[in-house]
Amino acid sequence: MVPKIAVQQKGISVADQNATPIRVGLLGAGTVGSQTARLIVEQKDELAARIGRPIELTGVACLDPKETERFPWIDQSIVTTDTMSVATNSDIVIELIGGTTVARKFVLAAIESGASVVTANKALLAKYGPEIYAAAEAKGVDIYFEAAVGGAIPFLRPLRESLVGDKVTSMLGIVNGTTNYILDEMTVKGLQFDDVLKDAQAKGYAEADPTGDIEGYDAANKAAIMATLGFHTSVTIDDVSVEGITNITADDIAAATAEHKVIKLLAVVENGEAGVSARVYPALIDENHPLASVHGSFNAIFVKAEAADDLMFYGRGAGGAPTASAVVGDVVTVARHIAAGCTGPSIPLYKDLKKAPINASKAAFAVRFLIHDKPGVLAAIATEFARNGVSINGVNQDLKPSLKAPGYDGEVQQLRLVTHATDEITLRETVKAVQALDFVTGQPSILRVLD
Amino acid sequence: MVPKIAVQQKGISVADQNATPIRVGLLGAGTVGSQTARLIVEQKDELAARIGRPIELTGVACLDPKETERFPWIDQSIVTTDTMSVATNSDIVIELIGGTTVARKFVLAAIESGASVVTANKALLAKYGPEIYAAAEAKGVDIYFEAAVGGAIPFLRPLRESLVGDKVTSMLGIVNGTTNYILDEMTVKGLQFDDVLKDAQAKGYAEADPTGDIEGYDAANKAAIMATLGFHTSVTIDDVSVEGITNITADDIAAATAEHKVIKLLAVVENGEAGVSARVYPALIDENHPLASVHGSFNAIFVKAEAADDLMFYGRGAGGAPTASAVVGDVVTVARHIAAGCTGPSIPLYKDLKKAPINASKAAFAVRFLIHDKPGVLAAIATEFARNGVSINGVNQDLKPSLKAPGYDGEVQQLRLVTHATDEITLRETVKAVQALDFVTGQPSILRVLD
Repeated sequence: MVPKIAVQQKGISVADQNATPIRVGLLGAGTVGSQTARLIVEQKDELAARIGRPIELTGVACLDPKETERFPWIDQSIVTTDTMSVATNSDIVIELIGGTTVARKFVLAAIESGASVVTANKALLAKYGPEIYAAAEAKGVDIYFEAAVGGAIPFLRPLRESLVGDKVTSMLGIVNGTTNYILDEMTVKGLQFDDVLKDAQAKGYAEADPTGDIEGYDAANKAAIMATLGFHTSVTIDDVSVEGITNITADDIAAATAEHKVIKLLAVVENGEAGVSARVYPALIDENHPLASVHGSFNAIFVKAEAADDLMFYGRGAGGAPTASAVVGDVVTVARHIAAGCTGPSIPLYKDLKKAPINASKAAFAVRFLIHDKPGVLAAIATEFARNGVSINGVNQDLKPSLKAPGYDGEVQQLRLVTHATDEITLRETVKAVQALDFVTGQPSILRVLD
Repeated sequence: MVPKIAVQQKGISVADQNATPIRVGLLGAGTVGSQTARLIVEQKDELAARIGRPIELTGVACLDPKETERFPWIDQSIVTTDTMSVATNSDIVIELIGGTTVARKFVLAAIESGASVVTANKALLAKYGPEIYAAAEAKGVDIYFEAAVGGAIPFLRPLRESLVGDKVTSMLGIVNGTTNYILDEMTVKGLQFDDVLKDAQAKGYAEADPTGDIEGYDAANKAAIMATLGFHTSVTIDDVSVEGITNITADDIAAATAEHKVIKLLAVVENGEAGVSARVYPALIDENHPLASVHGSFNAIFVKAEAADDLMFYGRGAGGAPTASAVVGDVVTVARHIAAGCTGPSIPLYKDLKKAPINASKAAFAVRFLIHDKPGVLAAIATEFARNGVSINGVNQDLKPSLKAPGYDGEVQQLRLVTHATDEITLRETVKAVQALDFVTGQPSILRVLD
């Protein structure tokens, strides 16, 4: 017999409702900050029941307090420009300022004051994560940051807490919505990168300065965090090799489409015999691969672990409300710990794993040359590949019979090769050698091919 | 500057290594139990570093101790048939016995003795979950059960801890590998249910007594647990409406394939205005839907939450090592709590939500009748549907021009209708009325169509 009534009477008791609320301070009231405030204020009773003690938004710090007047759920009397005061007078500090300089200062000050910290700041953690994790552990407070990778997707917590009995060997995912949107638009509309980027900026899907997204640094920050948590070792943004999508042309997309593939920007982290690697690069993916159907602002991450085998996590990687869902989930977790008088697990980076050299990992590459076709071209190119020990898996010379190459008067053809698995250094040397042949012109395109 | 050296020296200190190990008792040494023991023993040092204190397998209870001799990593001196002794002399008890009677006894005894419990037992939790959660909370110990739904997939913990700042409105998934395998085989090979089942039993993919899987009860147990955790209310197996796959015929599969659809057994839980519902039923899914490509023992669960929007979790739902990964992840979590001298969040079922009546939710249905064709048949059937207020979205009378119906001498045709959204009770009454018409024969097939 299940004692139904006893169970249903549980939750927050009268005594608990009268307990001193846990003070929550919010640094930054932009898109995510305002939605975070809304969830905390509007769900006050629900959250109190789930925590076992009330929580209260007691401070909101932002550069321009007028901005918060748009949000009716924010009590204007708690809005201030004095960020340090909010950072050091709360039980839980939510850092949504972004950037690495002042954010680091306020996060460390909050920890030093004894507050637990929830942040969505991937750049901060990719650069100073190990320092911040150590500071939180030394002070005995929590640091949670689910929203930093994959937005609303519960991914970092499962990685940190659910897969902790297993050995994670690799992770691979689409973790940047802006580049995913741009590549989608190029694919669907056949447009060039620059045109799609301008349109995305006009629609607010890309920042005025899009460098961090399109050059792959945002994804690289996420890769650093994923590798650090998954492999229990310090991996910072400086350890990540980064290639963005600015060189992807409409011709690349057309060639991919013709071969039933799509181009996606991937973050890939691996823990292999050669060491730990973290990379961001655009890759060709078969149109039937689950990642091929991840569109727009959605993110998806594959995880491979020794015992669990393959796992995938999918959801919205951006947007105010979805990101706020992850932030408030962290706030509730931290608040439960405070109510229970303890902290969650720290992040022990107990392994000093070496970083794998760039040529340790092998992949198939698709290389596209622009050539002035004449007899012997294929033989000459194939000879260069053979000389460098790069084995060719397939050749296609008819993808697009003729097009104009910049700086070249005659008609050119595309010659597209797909290699067997090779390392990137050898591949790039081979491409350089081919590029020196007199019938080759324009810029070659080099893309990894996902297995 | 990141203080790298300080960070890398962390992890388990000499003092911690000499600390009294946390005692782990294992009840049941079958497929999952033996793999769980392997991960705990083989990864001893890794787990100690992640926990901050050593853990040690101090007891293994099983009915036949000889069985454990196959597993070289299990120290035979700790194997016993005295299950109660292991259950009440451990800091963490892992229950992998299965069933609801003795498992409940040992789990409650373990909790009463002050042990935290990790279990993979969905039947136990679907029946006695609220009692067990309350007992654990009252005693101040942990109860974790990630492996009970979705096998290796970190799903219940994210639901319980990451989405706790959001409002989950519905969940829908493939959570039973045996039925998924059978439906896959029927689809690929065009075989009848009984033949595929026999083959699956011969290969060990289905139990000798497959009732729990094929009648949908295993999925129903999981639906009850999902609804309880997601909606913070008590939902037990008795609250779940269950329809298995034993009525699915090769003709159903052929009809689905012809319309570019697949049939999958779904667990669906919803928290709507009419109340909470938990259902298991086979449904027609478009072949492009992400769930259509979930094959064999893989599971996938979609979650819809107010702020997070759509999420999906995917991975291996069964198998010794994958399930053990989830179990050991829970063990490490509980061990971290013990090392820190606290417990994780309890499971407060603070809501007394009413159960939605069966006709509260509407869906499109695909209905297949066997008919003896003659003029006026379609008009007569359409009239019955109209009389019951069920709107028809599409009709197909040519799927399979002729076949033999059991107990009917003449040739029969299939007539297949797809309705607009309607409630199940009205639909079944309509089908019954049509079935009474003299030109209708055999058994009708009724399948929900997923949006």
